[in-house]
Order: sequence, then structure tokens, then C-alpha cells
Amino acid sequence: MSERINLNADLGESFGAWRMGDDAAMLEVVKSANVACGFHAGDPLVMRQTVATAKRCGVSLGAHPGFPDLQGFGRRRMDVPATELEAMLIYQIGALAALARAEGTTVTHVKPHGALNNMACADAKLAATVARAIHRLDPDLILLAPALSQLAVAGREAGLRVVEEIFADRAYLDDGNLVPRSQPGAMIHGAEACLRHVLDMLGAGALISINGKRLPVKAQSICVHGDDADAVATARALREGLQRAGYELVAIPELA
Amino acid sequence: MSERINLNADLGESFGAWRMGDDAAMLEVVKSANVACGFHAGDPLVMRQTVATAKRCGVSLGAHPGFPDLQGFGRRRMDVPATELEAMLIYQIGALAALARAEGTTVTHVKPHGALNNMACADAKLAATVARAIHRLDPDLILLAPALSQLAVAGREAGLRVVEEIFADRAYLDDGNLVPRSQPGAMIHGAEACLRHVLDMLGAGALISINGKRLPVKAQSICVHGDDADAVATARALREGLQRAGYELVAIPELA
Amino acid sequence: MSERINLNADLGESFGAWRMGDDAAMLEVVKSANVACGFHAGDPLVMRQTVATAKRCGVSLGAHPGFPDLQGFGRRRMDVPATELEAMLIYQIGALAALARAEGTTVTHVKPHGALNNMACADAKLAATVARAIHRLDPDLILLAPALSQLAVAGREAGLRVVEEIFADRAYLDDGNLVPRSQPGAMIHGAEACLRHVLDMLGAGALISINGKRLPVKAQSICVHGDDADAVATARALREGLQRAGYELVAIPELA
Amino acid sequence: MSERINLNADLGESFGAWRMGDDAAMLEVVKSANVACGFHAGDPLVMRQTVATAKRCGVSLGAHPGFPDLQGFGRRRMDVPATELEAMLIYQIGALAALARAEGTTVTHVKPHGALNNMACADAKLAATVARAIHRLDPDLILLAPALSQLAVAGREAGLRVVEEIFADRAYLDDGNLVPRSQPGAMIHGAEACLRHVLDMLGAGALISINGKRLPVKAQSICVHGDDADAVATARALREGLQRAGYELVAIPELA
Repeated sequence: MSERINLNADLGESFGAWRMGDDAAMLEVVKSANVACGFHAGDPLVMRQTVATAKRCGVSLGAHPGFPDLQGFGRRRMDVPATELEAMLIYQIGALAALARAEGTTVTHVKPHGALNNMACADAKLAATVARAIHRLDPDLILLAPALSQLAVAGREAGLRVVEEIFADRAYLDDGNLVPRSQPGAMIHGAEACLRHVLDMLGAGALISINGKRLPVKAQSICVHGDDADAVATARALREGLQRAGYELVAIPELA
Repeated sequence: MSERINLNADLGESFGAWRMGDDAAMLEVVKSANVACGFHAGDPLVMRQTVATAKRCGVSLGAHPGFPDLQGFGRRRMDVPATELEAMLIYQIGALAALARAEGTTVTHVKPHGALNNMACADAKLAATVARAIHRLDPDLILLAPALSQLAVAGREAGLRVVEEIFADRAYLDDGNLVPRSQPGAMIHGAEACLRHVLDMLGAGALISINGKRLPVKAQSICVHGDDADAVATARALREGLQRAGYELVAIPELA
Repeated sequence: MSERINLNADLGESFGAWRMGDDAAMLEVVKSANVACGFHAGDPLVMRQTVATAKRCGVSLGAHPGFPDLQGFGRRRMDVPATELEAMLIYQIGALAALARAEGTTVTHVKPHGALNNMACADAKLAATVARAIHRLDPDLILLAPALSQLAVAGREAGLRVVEEIFADRAYLDDGNLVPRSQPGAMIHGAEACLRHVLDMLGAGALISINGKRLPVKAQSICVHGDDADAVATARALREGLQRAGYELVAIPELA
Repeated sequence: MSERINLNADLGESFGAWRMGDDAAMLEVVKSANVACGFHAGDPLVMRQTVATAKRCGVSLGAHPGFPDLQGFGRRRMDVPATELEAMLIYQIGALAALARAEGTTVTHVKPHGALNNMACADAKLAATVARAIHRLDPDLILLAPALSQLAVAGREAGLRVVEEIFADRAYLDDGNLVPRSQPGAMIHGAEACLRHVLDMLGAGALISINGKRLPVKAQSICVHGDDADAVATARALREGLQRAGYELVAIPELA
């Protein structure tokens, strides 16, 4: 039997009159969508349309909650007390879940966005807050978290099912963190290089760092980015390359 | 058997560092709370705290969605296209429902806020949009609407259970609309006058206008206002007066 | 001596991570920019960058204040009391003026945006509020208003210098209002048709309606739109066509 | 000749329907007001009304810019890039300056709010960004900064006139920082104790720490807090006590 793998992307990041990304095209390629929930991007109408299109495409839905910072697109670190952050997360996931329900579908996973995600990957206490909020709302929600992150650890400890993801277009440090964008070699350019990077890591069952170090991990999902020019072409090449290599592409809830 | 009646108030209207109303006291008096959902008032933390206190007090929960206008407290009329408004309503109700779920309780009714409510009471098309949004999300949600309003009509047409409310401290025109606040006699002052106003209307099974005209109506809920100085005292007097008059005070889902 | 004419566009409409329009290209073509002030579009950084580029290009600066409605891009009608609207306008113009001052330049005109502009063009009382706010802040500010609008009238009555604009790509009704976008013939397509429309009206010293009716007007500025695909090409063609026809293109403060 | 001293408070912190503080009473007591500029508190109408009342009371005006975080009241630390922060500061100061101009008065000083102020007091680089933004807008603006802070240093280095303030109701550590609110003894309670604290420090020409350590400083302004219950009474007692002790209370621009 072929191994199952998921392809996910952050979508629904338009807001009001402003468009971002080619969601319609990406939803033809990926198997799961992380949908912005209105705090850092997305608005109720964008969310509903994204949900409807995702359903039509057989793409599973995840909430992609972020900090309340439209102007900074949720990329600015904010100090939010744990009780308030927990409420913010439940609020955002619930808003998307309701729009999904109105379209006859459901939200099956959660992936934090931007600065919140980065902070929760490194800070065990913050990670625990995020995991607790999700579990408190619905223990059946799956947490989609970067491989080897504190967030993945916290999710399992909270009793959530965790799916770990790797990035197709980012290089890793020896400790499993991403090479910061400010450093050379941070980004992996071109669909072919991205595909090789991903296939190498899946084959090895490990993150492979920029120095060749291997960190064992069971990654089940690959994150592709949705908002730059070649996003759709790269995602499509990845999908086809994975299928050629014998992987079966599935939505997050279908992962073993 | 005594007749059942409900007492409701708009609560959870604080935001961030700003307090509004004495929610803890009001939740000891009313039987149902309409909780602001973050667009015109309320924030995720205020919402969660309001939900938790309401649960402890045995008060049933309603979503109180409004226009996205914090600065105007949802009191400014806005022209929002129907598809967008529908998404905004589902978003807000869902956000509150999730916070309720995290606290082990549920949202059982919906009452639009401010300018949105006023517009939906007079405009059949807008009322139909509101009713459709609620029904689309969950046909078991109860719509709390002003007696004789287009909103009440639209709710029934959409297949929702509708509870009609009357106002304790507002006088009515001959056509069933409220006397505008700009006109003399609009407000009924003092707990005793409010109680008499309410008992007269309940006894008559009719709205009684400022000119004495009677408009038959089956009002099952009484709205008390939560944000002025005497709010709590007036609400308490109403509650006690209704009980003395033989009414049984119940939450909205318990109404026959 | 050749007749002076101005070409203006609404610019600086990006927000945070979201881009809108090709401002750098448009600023090479137009002579005056109406810069969004953060309420419906624009943020402080976008505003400052737009101001700096405009200065470099010799483009004069106008404030383009709107309703506080990012999600609706200032296109939704809102009921804002006069005293509050006045304060909102002064706030937005002042914010842009400060960013201009920090870049060593000045804001010389004001043009309301979207729904606020549409409402002020038809409603004499609202127009008077807008004009009074501008005059109160700085009586030397020029009001850029649609030809024949109530806003233009109110500006002159308030003692402001008013420049009247016509639209290159919109057809007019017999009463001087724009043909609503929902009706056939509302938009004039193609650079050549836009240029002919403009030259006809400038030559006639009149708005020319879709039925050929002429409404005398002294239009000194032409508004080109900045946010659709062909915007830059159309604007450039207009500019060149006007120059070929002997018009001298100038910034708003240089108009006679 | 008596020594001149200033009393300042953070005011104009209401927002929309939410009231905060008794501004009318405080403006009868203090000599300078730091007015919120709409990003963390305040809205255009509140700002204009605060400006008008301050003018009537002979109170000098300062801008009190903060992070764009209404929900967190500007008290949450945010990572904002320097160029963006600079634009945010100029935007806010300019908005208030315009409202002041419309009321026939001027903004003469700037004091950052909340988390931004705290961060700029400790971080020399951030302090330099704040000082540069103010200087860039108007080199005649006075910077009101906590005594001995990095912000005060940066202001002088940028060429701004700096007025250093001490807090009437907060104890100091040996290094000149405030005792964190979480520690015992952080707050000084009661008008009399506050007055003695202030008079001791003014007499000594030094901050006096909770351990009695003296850190020489030329404090010319005393900050009183405007938003708790006894605020007005405490401020009034301070004012009267200072006058009894021979100090002349003046607005910030009148300080020698």
C-alpha cells in the first residue's frame, strides 16, 4: 500500500477589497487548507467563499487563527496573556466552524498563524496554551504543527491528535528550526529543488538540515506557500512529483 | 399553572480595558443574556467571562451580533450587502457558540443589535437575510425579536422559533413602533412605571400605545436595559413585580 | 497660452501586507494624488511611502479621507453624526499632513472617498459638514469635488477654493450624476474612448450626458482610476492625448 | 522666585460609547494633558472634545501615541519595525495636531503610551526611533519622558527639548526603574504619601528608591494617573500640596 501524505496551504488571506493569492487554483492542488479567521486576514465573506470552494474541491478545512493585527498580517509578535489568547483562539476557530457548518462541512484541524505559530513552536508554555484552547473547544480537532516543534509536543500532551508538517521551500538548521529568512540559503528556489528536498526528507524519515544533519521525524504533511507568484506552479509540481514517487495524497483527517 | 415569561438584557458589552454595565449583578436578575460578539462590543475574553458567569447563574445564552463598528457601538446604520451580512452573522454567532462550548454550555437564541436590529425590524428584505443566516447555521436557534416587527415575521417564515419581546422602559406608537427617543414620552421612568407598563401589556395580550391603542401580540420576553445607572434596580423590581403578579420567570428555551 | 488641466488619481490604497494598484507607475503619469488616510485604506507606512514617491515625482498631495470601514473599503454608506464626521475628517487630513511635513512637503487639497463622497455629492447638509471641517482645519486647502455636485457648491459657500473634476471612464446622466454601474453604458471602455469623452467635455465646457445633453461646467481636473488592470495605460494615453491637444498638465495648486 | 513644576495626566482615553476617567475634573487640576490618539484609545470625537476642554482650562496639549491595539489598550508589547513605528507616531501626532489646530490651539509635547513607552525607556534603539520620528515631524515638540530613561537620553541626542517626569504613586528601584506592579510596595497609596514622595524627590533633586538610594535627576513634571477612583482627589491634593510648598504649577512649555 502506498504511503499517505498531505499537502496543505494557508488560504483565505484576502480581506475586503484586497486580494491575496490565487485560492481557486491552489484549492485544485492541495488537500487541506488553513483558512485565516479574520484577526490577521480573512473576513466573514472571504472565509465563507473559501470554505465553499474547499468543499467543492474535496479539500479539508483547518482554522488558521492569528494575533489580532490586520495591519501587521499577524506577523508581529504580541504579548497576549494566556487566558485572553485562549479566548481569541476559540473565538476564531468557532467563527470558521460556523461558516463551515452553514456550508454543510466541518473544520477538522487547526494551525496557528505567523508570529503566534513561531512563538508557540519555541515556547512550551505558549504552546500549551494553544493546545489547551483547541482541546477545550473540541478534543477531536487535529493540530497541524511544524515537525519537532514545542507546539507538536504540547498538542500530544494535551491529548490532541497531531500531524507534523515540513516546509517544501525552507531549509532547516541543525536543531530543526528553519534557517531565518535573513540568512543565505534560507529559501529553496524552484519546484524541482523543493520536490527533491521533500522527497529526501520523506525518504529518510527525518528533517535534513542545511549541513546534512538528520533529525528523525514522522512528517505527514507538506506546507506549500500560497501567496507568491509561482505558488501554484510549485504546488502543482510537488503534487505531481509526490504522486509519481508513489505517495497517495490525502486530506488531513484521512492520514493514518 | 402560572404563565411563563422571560426577562432578557444585552450584556457582555465591555471591550478591552473599557467596562460597560454591571453584568455580574444583571446576571443575577435576568433569565437570558444577549451577548455582544466582538463586532460592535465585547471581545473574546469578555465573551468567555460573560458566558461562564451566565452559566453559573442559570441564565440562557443568546448571540447579539451587530455591525462591524466598534467606534459607533453598532448604532450607526451601514449598508452591508446581503451575502456579506449573512456571513458576518454566522461568524459572530459561531464565535460565541464556540466560547459557550468551551465552557460546557450552548447558545440557544439570537437577537440582532442596535442599528442592525432597528433596520431588520422595518425592512422585510433585510429581516429575511438575518433569519436565513440564523437558520442556515442552526435551525434550532430561537430568534428573539421585537413584538410585531418584520424581523419576527421573517423569522417565522424562515422556519425559526420566534420569541417576541417588549420593552419595559419604552413607550409605543400606535403602529407598534417605539416612540423615538427624540420625542417626549419616549422613555418610561422609574421601576414602578416600567412594571405597570409591562403588566398592563401582558394582561391585555397587546402592545398598549402611548395613546392607549391596543395591538394584540403574544409577548413572551421583556427586555431590560443593562447600561444605565439604575439598570440593575429596575430589573430587580421588574422581576419581583412579575413574580408577585404570578408569572414564572424562565429562560428563553423553557418558554412554552 | 495653453489651457491648464489636472490629472488626479486615488492612490496609497494598499494596506499592511495587501497591495492595491501600481502607485509607482501612476505617480509618473498623474499630476495630483488623493492619498487614503488609514480609515478605509492606507496605513501610516503606505501613506508615508506614497507621500515620498509623490514628492519625488512632482505630484501634488491631497488627503482622501473616508468612513472608518477597512472591511468595506469605505464604500458602504454609514450614518455618522456631523460632529463626529467633522472630527474624523480633520483627524485623517492631519495625519497625512504630518507625514507630508516629515517628508518636507505639504497636503494641498482634499477629496472625500467612496460612500462619503457619493453621499456628500447629493446631500447638501452632509456636504456642508465636509466643507466646514476642511475650512476649520485650514482655509487654504483646496476641495477637489465632482463637477456640479452639492459638495462643490458647499465648498464654495464655506469659502474654500474648489476644483471640479470629471471622470474619464464614466458616463453621465442628464442631471449630471454618473450613470450607475449597474446600468448599461455606465463605463467607458478603452483609452481612446476615454480620451474622446474627456476632450469633448473640455472642448464644450460642459458635461455631456449619455443622451447628448450638455451641462455647462468649468472642469479643471480629470479623475483616472488607479486600481484596475489597464489603469496605468489608460492614464498614460489620456495624459499624452491631452498634451497633443494642447493642454498643459499641472498639479492642483497650479490651476489658475 | 518660586520653582516651576508641571503636573501631567493621560487623558482622552474614552472610546466610542465607552467612558474612561473623569477628564473634565482632571483638566481642572493638571497643567498638561497627554491625549490618546486613536490607536490604543481615543477616537476623533473624544480627541476633539478633550482638546477643546483642555484649551478652556489652560492645560497644554501633548500627543500620547501608542501601539495599534485597542483591545489591549496599547499595553501589549508588539514588535513593530522602526520605519513603520516612525510612520505610526507621526500619523498619530499629526491627527491630534490637526484637531488642536481646528480648535485654535497647538500640541506642544509628546509622550509615548503604555508598552511603547515602557519599551522605549529600556531600549536605546527603539528610543532613538521614537525621538527621530518626533524630531522629523517638528523639532520644536517637547518630549515628556520618565526621568533617567533611555527615552530621555535619546530625545536629547535627537535635539529635542526633554522634560523628565516622576510618578507620584509609584516606588522606584535602586536602578531608577519602577518597582514592578507585581511586587510589594510598588504602589504608593493615599494622597498624603504620594505628596510626601514627590516633595522628597523634588527637594533632593533625585529619584529616591524604595531602599533610600538617591539618583540625581532634574524632574520637572509629575505624572498623576487619571483612571482610578481616587484619581481626581489625589491629583488635587498633590496640586495643593505643591503650591503650599512654594512650587508654581505651570504647563510644559512654560518650564524654564
